[in-house]
Amino acid sequence: MDSQHLPRINGARLWQSLMDLGAIGATANGGVCRIALTDADRKGRDLVVQWFREAGLEVRVDEIGNVFARRHGTDPDAPAVATGSHIDTQPSGGKFDGNFGVLAGLEVMRTLNDLGIDTRAPLEVAFWTNEEGTRFTPVMMGSGVFAGVFAADHARARTDRDGVRVEAALEAIGYRGEHPAGEVPGGMYAAYFEAHIEQGPVLEAAGLPIGVVSGALGQQWYDVTVTGQDAHAGPTPLALRHDALLASARMIETVNRIARGEAPHGRGTVGYVEVRPNSRNVIPGRVDFTVDFRNLSQEGLDRMDAAMRGAFADIAEAAAVSVDIRQVVKFEPCLFAASCVDSVRRAAASLGLPHMDVVSGAGHDAVYLAQLAPTGMIFVPCKDGISHNELEDALPEHIEAGANVLLQAMLAHAR
Amino acid sequence: MDSQHLPRINGARLWQSLMDLGAIGATANGGVCRIALTDADRKGRDLVVQWFREAGLEVRVDEIGNVFARRHGTDPDAPAVATGSHIDTQPSGGKFDGNFGVLAGLEVMRTLNDLGIDTRAPLEVAFWTNEEGTRFTPVMMGSGVFAGVFAADHARARTDRDGVRVEAALEAIGYRGEHPAGEVPGGMYAAYFEAHIEQGPVLEAAGLPIGVVSGALGQQWYDVTVTGQDAHAGPTPLALRHDALLASARMIETVNRIARGEAPHGRGTVGYVEVRPNSRNVIPGRVDFTVDFRNLSQEGLDRMDAAMRGAFADIAEAAAVSVDIRQVVKFEPCLFAASCVDSVRRAAASLGLPHMDVVSGAGHDAVYLAQLAPTGMIFVPCKDGISHNELEDALPEHIEAGANVLLQAMLAHAR
Repeated sequence: MDSQHLPRINGARLWQSLMDLGAIGATANGGVCRIALTDADRKGRDLVVQWFREAGLEVRVDEIGNVFARRHGTDPDAPAVATGSHIDTQPSGGKFDGNFGVLAGLEVMRTLNDLGIDTRAPLEVAFWTNEEGTRFTPVMMGSGVFAGVFAADHARARTDRDGVRVEAALEAIGYRGEHPAGEVPGGMYAAYFEAHIEQGPVLEAAGLPIGVVSGALGQQWYDVTVTGQDAHAGPTPLALRHDALLASARMIETVNRIARGEAPHGRGTVGYVEVRPNSRNVIPGRVDFTVDFRNLSQEGLDRMDAAMRGAFADIAEAAAVSVDIRQVVKFEPCLFAASCVDSVRRAAASLGLPHMDVVSGAGHDAVYLAQLAPTGMIFVPCKDGISHNELEDALPEHIEAGANVLLQAMLAHAR
Repeated sequence: MDSQHLPRINGARLWQSLMDLGAIGATANGGVCRIALTDADRKGRDLVVQWFREAGLEVRVDEIGNVFARRHGTDPDAPAVATGSHIDTQPSGGKFDGNFGVLAGLEVMRTLNDLGIDTRAPLEVAFWTNEEGTRFTPVMMGSGVFAGVFAADHARARTDRDGVRVEAALEAIGYRGEHPAGEVPGGMYAAYFEAHIEQGPVLEAAGLPIGVVSGALGQQWYDVTVTGQDAHAGPTPLALRHDALLASARMIETVNRIARGEAPHGRGTVGYVEVRPNSRNVIPGRVDFTVDFRNLSQEGLDRMDAAMRGAFADIAEAAAVSVDIRQVVKFEPCLFAASCVDSVRRAAASLGLPHMDVVSGAGHDAVYLAQLAPTGMIFVPCKDGISHNELEDALPEHIEAGANVLLQAMLAHAR
């Protein structure tokens, strides 16, 4: 089909919906605070559900509060083609993270209604409960329960800092549904797509509106403790020190070096450091820091783990300190289904939108969905790569382009 | 004189005095909390003054609360030979830091009384107000006022965190004296000696009881701020990061490298680090840390300063961050008078005590006294080099040896 004649979403309507939803929980600095299962979340959910119903979609709520809106297809037995994301935000979040994926899905439905296009397979747009994990852990709770990674009972028993359980919070906002998590009318999705802002600087740096996401990096997180001996900075010659911070500095450099050796997908970050006693004229006797390793293959993560353990032991020995490494989090690498990745790439090409293959460095609901169904993601640039921040921003033309790619990709699987 | 016939101090009596003074402000963990100008300090001062009087010494208190106890000489016109240190402690301090120097001086007086030895020059033992600087800054306040480094009025107007002035605190404990600071009957001291625990590990590592202190390292302290850009650890490739912590880690290593290049006296320490936002999956956008450089010559300190500024600028440029360096403290290097250093060395040799030349890495009241009079210091080992800590400890035979060296050195100048 000539790209001139492809159906197009209404960019202005999508933008307005993003602004309207962003007004709920709006902060003074232009951001959004709409933490999962709060009253602000309820208001946001109610507005989106109202929009779903106005678009003629059939809404169901599952037992962990995930909300699904279905547009029926012509073949009642066909498994649905789905999209979705989340509408909860960080405490100092923005208008686009998650919200873009949900409202792009809504805009796909509205557009098909406007154009009178029927699909063979049903279409669904979902928003998943508590993706951010700010008030309740774990993160990506709703999609994790849907995928069977955690039991619904387990997730509903989690508590916030005030002892409030997820179950009670769901009931309080009216989103404790009855539908069993993971059960989809007509069977599991034929395909799942998620549009999302990139939350990184790659597309902006490349000057491209569309990222074709080939997979999500696996993650291994560690807590590290380096123990030396406090001592006075003045009277203690260098050779007699047990300087936990000097050793830690060398380890921080090593984390970066290991990640550089795993280009292009390796990431290594030390984000947290605590120094004791943290006094300017005392040689630090103890440093605690974190390591966050990411890579696209488990073999790559295994190499990073082994390289870190070897190098840290050598550094500790040379600095006359001890080191203890505890792995605290693991997410497996995720390669999205070739069929879905190809659909996204072809959709961008058919629309004449410049694009590149990228990987997701962060976790997304789509990573759990990929355990159940062929899955793909569409990234659009965000300003300065900033997200989880009130400064989060995106250009209307990129938002529109991403939703058009979503429309084409879903149609390719649903027609 | 045959070393068998040299006068000797009473080690058991000195040790008992250290334990008795250490009982005032004793902590549950075996340390001492006797912060300057508190009621505990008053009790400690009163006990030491009582001991001074019982030893027949003439006590005077100056306008900043320094206390002097004089044993008259046979030549009423001779300038005195003096010793001293401080009896205030850190909040979690020990029994020896400062206290040893004061009570070793008292023990010298008691020994000369016991042996009926008269000296030509008068002898004095002093304790200086607020050496530690815990409650009131600056540190080494009493000796600094005595040396004219700060005006007495300026020091007395300093306040603690509750707004209490030094003047009021001195009056409250009864040690607001009338004697003008810096005025010594008979003129400034002919020599000043201070015995002190090393507060470092050098003598213990060398297995020697006596350190002949040739001088004190100069100090230059800095506050450093490295500014990058917060970003998500996952979505941000290494090449697009502005990682303030990675740059800081390289700077910490550089501080150590610069100090290694100034062996044997160069010291470089980063003791304090604050990372922002300090979250495990966020690339740090800002790091504040401190640098403490020490060296025995100003030329050495100047080299360290220049090397740091050049290297930090290069590291910041390579890491795409900015760096700001502010010098916040400066103490000039101090070389003690050859006459006094030689007296300490000869005293140790005459007593058959193994010894080595060392430098003081920390500040001491003796450093200010050195601006007024020929000065020397005697170090004895402390356990594991630990001081400013409730674990601070020393061996009775080292305490005794140090006091015997002090006795010989003072006699060499006073006879």
